[in-house]
Amino acid sequence: MTERAEFEALERDAVYRAIATRRDVRRGFIDEPLPQDLIHRLLSAAHCAPSVGLMQPSRFVLVRDRGIREAVHAAFLQANEQATATYTGGRREQYTSLKLEGILEAPQNLCILSDPQSERGHQLGRHTMPETAIYSTVCAIQNLWLAARAEGVGVGWVSILDPARLREILQVPANIVPVAYLCIGYVDRFATEPELERSGWETRIPIEDVVSYDRFSAGEKVANP
Amino acid sequence: MTERAEFEALERDAVYRAIATRRDVRRGFIDEPLPQDLIHRLLSAAHCAPSVGLMQPSRFVLVRDRGIREAVHAAFLQANEQATATYTGGRREQYTSLKLEGILEAPQNLCILSDPQSERGHQLGRHTMPETAIYSTVCAIQNLWLAARAEGVGVGWVSILDPARLREILQVPANIVPVAYLCIGYVDRFATEPELERSGWETRIPIEDVVSYDRFSAGEKVANP
Repeated sequence: MTERAEFEALERDAVYRAIATRRDVRRGFIDEPLPQDLIHRLLSAAHCAPSVGLMQPSRFVLVRDRGIREAVHAAFLQANEQATATYTGGRREQYTSLKLEGILEAPQNLCILSDPQSERGHQLGRHTMPETAIYSTVCAIQNLWLAARAEGVGVGWVSILDPARLREILQVPANIVPVAYLCIGYVDRFATEPELERSGWETRIPIEDVVSYDRFSAGEKVANP
Repeated sequence: MTERAEFEALERDAVYRAIATRRDVRRGFIDEPLPQDLIHRLLSAAHCAPSVGLMQPSRFVLVRDRGIREAVHAAFLQANEQATATYTGGRREQYTSLKLEGILEAPQNLCILSDPQSERGHQLGRHTMPETAIYSTVCAIQNLWLAARAEGVGVGWVSILDPARLREILQVPANIVPVAYLCIGYVDRFATEPELERSGWETRIPIEDVVSYDRFSAGEKVANP
């Protein structure tokens, strides 16, 4: 069975709109839990991501419990204190002014994990590049992020967390890898620019500087003056 | 500046359609190079993916040159011979019957790489989880894959390649990591099922088996009978 390749112009534009207007959301979450059918659509979108050998390594822990979110938030505060100490002067001032997570504001969090040693997929595609198992889970995260955008749901990825502490809190066994810890919830509006661009933390690289043809060439002017 | 959160139902459905009908394409590529404006749209979709600290680590090498594609194809054949030798009996027979790449059939290939040590982003979010640099590039790959689906363009990820050999062929410097080697091109139709499901290589895991609440629990019945 096959399905036609074409999308209508309006459908195509919608996909590009989701991609272009998706943001890393850390504020403005509405204090209203997402309904279960919406959660199901988002997780299903993640679960049908590509996976090497069709191994489907992604696992999902939806965290609604306030106590668990408080424990994760405490882990964030600790990791963020250490991160803050690595900056000095104006850069530190700028860093401390950033809003970097919405763990308690979002009515639910979602930890996305991977089982990279799973026998499923029978190792197809993993002999030369075993890292593609975890990459498959990252594809699932991006599927969910775009589906969420189309649902008016904000997603923020918190990487300022000690993975060992996260394992303890969520009781993650040794063979499973926490890949992303996300804050998710309804929002009214999405910012038009990434927060780190708006705040002056970093600028956008022009597309021409990251593309080359037939062989790698470092186009980025900053890195190669 | 902000943008409204809502998508129309038809727009939302289009995003889900791209997610659900995206396939890993290894056959049926039309022998017609993608126009440059379409390539630009796809790469721009990839480039606006989320990245940790807005570091934008993704780099893109569009490979149209036949000689280079032939060298990559030879590298695939070598890696695939080694992979084939790891299977026995009926599983080997099944493995050798699979079509695993379209390197020469697709009029262009695309290598997506990452610069995980880039100073851009000023290490934000990378103290505790440095692997999020490469994960950012995988998010870019999935953006491109979905945009391609909406454009009627097939994408196939080839991981049966020795990364060291790929580095040599594409002249990739030591600080840059090849993340994915993709075959891309127009197709007429997309298969409704993943090829590895249709061929009986692997089955789909029901969504209930990969989701748990508040703490990790291994729901998959196969792994935990």
